[in-house]
Parts: sequence; structure tokens; C-alpha cells
Amino acid sequence: MASVKRLSLEVIEALATEVLMGRGFSTDQAGAIAETVTAAERDGCLSHGLFRIPFYVAALKNPSANPVAEPTLRVSESSVVHVDARGGFCPLALRVGEPALQEKAGRHGIAALAIHETYNIAALWPEVERLAEAGLVVFAFTASNAYVAPAGGTKPIYGTNPMAFGFPRKDAPPLVFDQASSASARGEIQLHLREGKPLPEGWAIDKHGQPTTDPAAALEGAQLAFGGHKGASLALMVELLAGALIGDMFSIESKTQDTHNVGAPFGGELILAIDPSHCNGSADHLSRAEFLFDEVLSQPGTRLPSQRRYTARQRHIAEGVDVSTAMLDQLEQLKNSKT
Amino acid sequence: MASVKRLSLEVIEALATEVLMGRGFSTDQAGAIAETVTAAERDGCLSHGLFRIPFYVAALKNPSANPVAEPTLRVSESSVVHVDARGGFCPLALRVGEPALQEKAGRHGIAALAIHETYNIAALWPEVERLAEAGLVVFAFTASNAYVAPAGGTKPIYGTNPMAFGFPRKDAPPLVFDQASSASARGEIQLHLREGKPLPEGWAIDKHGQPTTDPAAALEGAQLAFGGHKGASLALMVELLAGALIGDMFSIESKTQDTHNVGAPFGGELILAIDPSHCNGSADHLSRAEFLFDEVLSQPGTRLPSQRRYTARQRHIAEGVDVSTAMLDQLEQLKNSKT
Repeated sequence: MASVKRLSLEVIEALATEVLMGRGFSTDQAGAIAETVTAAERDGCLSHGLFRIPFYVAALKNPSANPVAEPTLRVSESSVVHVDARGGFCPLALRVGEPALQEKAGRHGIAALAIHETYNIAALWPEVERLAEAGLVVFAFTASNAYVAPAGGTKPIYGTNPMAFGFPRKDAPPLVFDQASSASARGEIQLHLREGKPLPEGWAIDKHGQPTTDPAAALEGAQLAFGGHKGASLALMVELLAGALIGDMFSIESKTQDTHNVGAPFGGELILAIDPSHCNGSADHLSRAEFLFDEVLSQPGTRLPSQRRYTARQRHIAEGVDVSTAMLDQLEQLKNSKT
Repeated sequence: MASVKRLSLEVIEALATEVLMGRGFSTDQAGAIAETVTAAERDGCLSHGLFRIPFYVAALKNPSANPVAEPTLRVSESSVVHVDARGGFCPLALRVGEPALQEKAGRHGIAALAIHETYNIAALWPEVERLAEAGLVVFAFTASNAYVAPAGGTKPIYGTNPMAFGFPRKDAPPLVFDQASSASARGEIQLHLREGKPLPEGWAIDKHGQPTTDPAAALEGAQLAFGGHKGASLALMVELLAGALIGDMFSIESKTQDTHNVGAPFGGELILAIDPSHCNGSADHLSRAEFLFDEVLSQPGTRLPSQRRYTARQRHIAEGVDVSTAMLDQLEQLKNSKT
């Protein structure tokens, strides 16, 4: 058992904020990032928790990254609202854009938020959950760095390109899923490499385009989309939505500008939000959804997307989170080193 | 080689219209269905071509099906427009709703079309292609009959639940995909049964929840989503969008009301449309998309979604379509029998 220290969520958030501010992030940028990182620790998503702080700091090596950027909201008569993140990080851009998206969706029934020129190292579920908690049906899309081969191809073009979806629930936190269009996360392959374990079949091909279970060969080759050509179609869709449609970078471009190979994707995020009160007439969409969820959960072995996260959340809010002392040491170093 | 007769697309459309009108469909319902069926023949999608005509006729056995329904458009200040199909078939409801959707999307940047209480036996790509051809970025969702087990479960709850997406192209027909969230189409399993062939792994489970490659056992059991739990999440999303959100039936309900086991799903369809001119400022989304498509196609072995359909289309427009005489005999019988 690795050495751990139990910390409250408040302490985790304060620590994340302190490290980031020590490295030059503005109060607003650091605060928004720390909130997202803490939400991940709270929900047991370690890969998006404190573990990410060093990535945020490393992202500053890219000349276009700006730790004190003030995102600009652009709202017009259109139901598509925009936030120019100006080289800042996505959590603050979301804070700036979400209220306008909610207002537009409530008024017109459906609206979109395009976030431009942002470093996006976080998961998509936090914003999807917030907006669904406010009663909206929500989609979110963002491209990343080119790691995934197109269907039938052998070289990376698509990012791991997540698509997230949220639907409000009655007396419960929203139903949310946030899933990569790749068969696995990049980090899972790196973890297999570190642990000397072979990959499951179907995750990757080597640089010659041959299927491989060797993590090193996979990292030199390309990841595969989940579910064959259908997952690859979703990856392409995400590139078109978060790249071509809103005028931001594709994953191949984001990777090219990542000169220090930090792995911090730079580009856009697109969020769509629908207000159910415009959609369903007299039907009660919340009760209807619960009817469906009950049908699913009546089968042994099933669970709903996000259920595991909400279970972890209850425990961690009550008891705090065990953070490894190795992680705490790393953050302490990060705070004190200035290179 | 089965006996075939080469027919022009005009002759196919006229034949489809004649059979449907002979069986009590109104001119408008028959015309819209025939157009969709002909588009499928034109694009080499045999399973949605003339092959479907008997399903349209059989759907009339359901008491709620109405072959002379006149769909009603409801447009308000909202960007969500509605068509009440009133037990009619989806192709005519789309004809009635699409112009309003286009107008709203053009004005507000993003809009939705909810089609209610419709029999939907067609693919989603025809409407997605039409709207993308008009310059919009388009999503479409519809639930079907309960054939697919939820993740971890063993009994059918979800339909094969397609999700379709379209993106306009420069000097080319739109990029479109239309994919079931199940690993295979229902019809593919029936085809394997007829031909006495085992199913590929991963398509289905038997009624005890065990993986099976026996098509008969699969039809008694449940189909599986593509790509494991991620595909199942998409299937759930489609139920929530085309069912709970817009107040229409879930796949489990549609199956229950299909008293004659016709396999004609009854429920809703949701279409979302985005006008790129509201999204991308000065960027040229069409050129940007072509840049990405060129990258994909520069890899040997790749093709874009819908490419195969468009290739078949060119050939069939020029040369006509070979229709099996067995199919023509069946349609002739259908026209003359009144039971």
C-alpha cells in the first residue's frame, strides 16, 4: 500500500490553487482549474485530479499558453455564443460562457457555446453535469492531439476526441457520460508500458499499421477508435465540430504546435444545450427518463453511466480523499521550482 | 445469378408510389415514401429500397398507423419546431418540417425539429443529407424497437437506435454517416439465419445472457451495442433524445404496441441543425473540412463515410438499377392482394 494522506476537498482545492498561482496563473485561471481538479478527486477520477496539475504547469512551455488570460464573451442576437479563451485554460472560459449559454437555451429552446483557442486538459463531464443540473440536455465535444488512426488507415490523425452527454434527473444528479472515441485513453497505454503489461487486443496498431499489444509499439504507432469504423466516424465528427465548424484547430494541428510535447491539446470546444420545456409539450421528461432508468437497472449487472462517479462522490465528500504522498511531494516541488 | 430487370430510378419511384397508393396511402404519404425508397435504391442501400415497401404496407396492421395522415407543423417563437405526424410515416413529416427547421437554424444559428408519433422505417441519412446539402451541420436520432441489451444486462431494452451526422462539403455531396448503436442491423442477423451462417462474435447474446453466434438464439436473446459500454451509452442517449425529451415512445414501448410484430418502429425523431455562419467567424469551414478529408484520404485503405454510397449513386443514375424479378413479383402481388 502506497503511503497516503487523507485530505478534505477544501484542502485539495486550496493546494491546487496555491501551486498554480505560485507558477504564475491568475487567481481566476487557478481558481477555475482547481475547482475542476477537485471535482475529479471528489469523484474518484484520479487521472483528472491533482495528477493533472503538472500538465497545466507544463503547458505554459507553449508560447501561445497564457496563465493570466482573461476570456472574452461574445454574445449577439445569435443563439450561438462564443468565448475567446485567448490561450487560457478551459475551466475559466466555461465559467464565462455557461451563463450566456443557459440564457440563450432557455429563451430559444436550443443554443450553442463555442470556446475558442483554449488549452483543454480537463474532462468534459464537469460542464455537462453543471448544465444538466440546471435542467438542460447537453452535448460537449472537443478534439485533442492526433493519436488515433482513421478507419482503414495506419497513421494518427484524430485525437482521442471525447463526446459527452448529459440529461437531467429527478431527485438525483444528472445522467452524464463522457467517453473518448478511442478504444482507450492515451494514459492507459502509458500505464501498461510502465507496468510492463501487454495491451488488450483492439487498442492500437504499430507504426507499420499492424495490430499490436506492445505498449511501446502502440505509442510509436497509432491508437484505434472504439468499435471499429463507427467509433472512427465519431472521432471525425468531433474534429469537424470542435475544429472546422467553429474555426479552431484539428488534432493534427494541435499536436504540431505542442512543441515541447506536453500533451496539452490546444483548440476549441463546442457545447450544445437544449431546454426540454421547448420540446415535450405536456410530457414529463424527467419521469419518463426515470421509467427508462428503472427498466435498465431492473436487470442484474447493469448500472447507469456516471453512477460509479456519484457513489465515489458521496464517500469522498463525507470522508475526504486519500492522496498519495508521492503526489503531494511532486506538487511541493512544483511549487518551489521555477523552471 | 438471380434473375434481374434493369429499371430507371423514375420507374422505381413510380412503381413504389403505385403499390403504396393501391394499398390506401395518400398521394403525399406514398410520394414521400417512394422518394426515400428510390434514394436508397439509387445509393445501393438495398435494405432501405423497394425491399421496405412490404414493411410499409404491413405497418398498417397497427391500429395507430394512418396511411392518409396529414402531418401538422407547429412553429412558435422557439427554435424547436414540431411536426405531429399523426400516425403517418416519417418521410412526409420531414417534408413538412424541414423548411421550418432550415429557417430557424439560419436565423438563430441552431435549431431543432421534433417529429412526433411517426412510423419510421427509413434510414436517417436522406434527411441529414438534404439539410447538410443546404449548408447545415446536422444530427438526427431515432429510437426503434427493443432488440439491444443495456451494458452489463441480458434483456432487450434499446432499439438499434441510429445516430446520423452530416457536414456540408465544397463541390461534393455532404459527408454523412448514419450508424446504428447496435453492433449489427437486425436484418443482418435474419440474413445469417436464412443462409445458415454463424454470426460474428460480439453481435448478440442468447436468452440466458450468454454470448452466441447462433442467429436463432440471438433473435430470441438480445443484440449487443457496438463497442461495448460506449455504444450502449449512445443507445441510451438516443432513447432519451427521441423518447423522453420530445415526449415520444421508448423502444420498449414501441415494441409493445407493435401487436402484429411487423417491426415498424413507432415514435419520435429529433433533428438538430447548426448554421456554420454563426459559428466560425472568418474561418472557412468548408476549406478546413477538405483539408482534414485530404489528410484522411492520403492514407491508403481509408475512405470517408458515405463515399461508397455516392459512388453507387453515380453508377445507378447513369445506368439504372438491377432489381430482382422476385422483388418485382412480390410488389405485383402486394398491389393486387388486399389482405
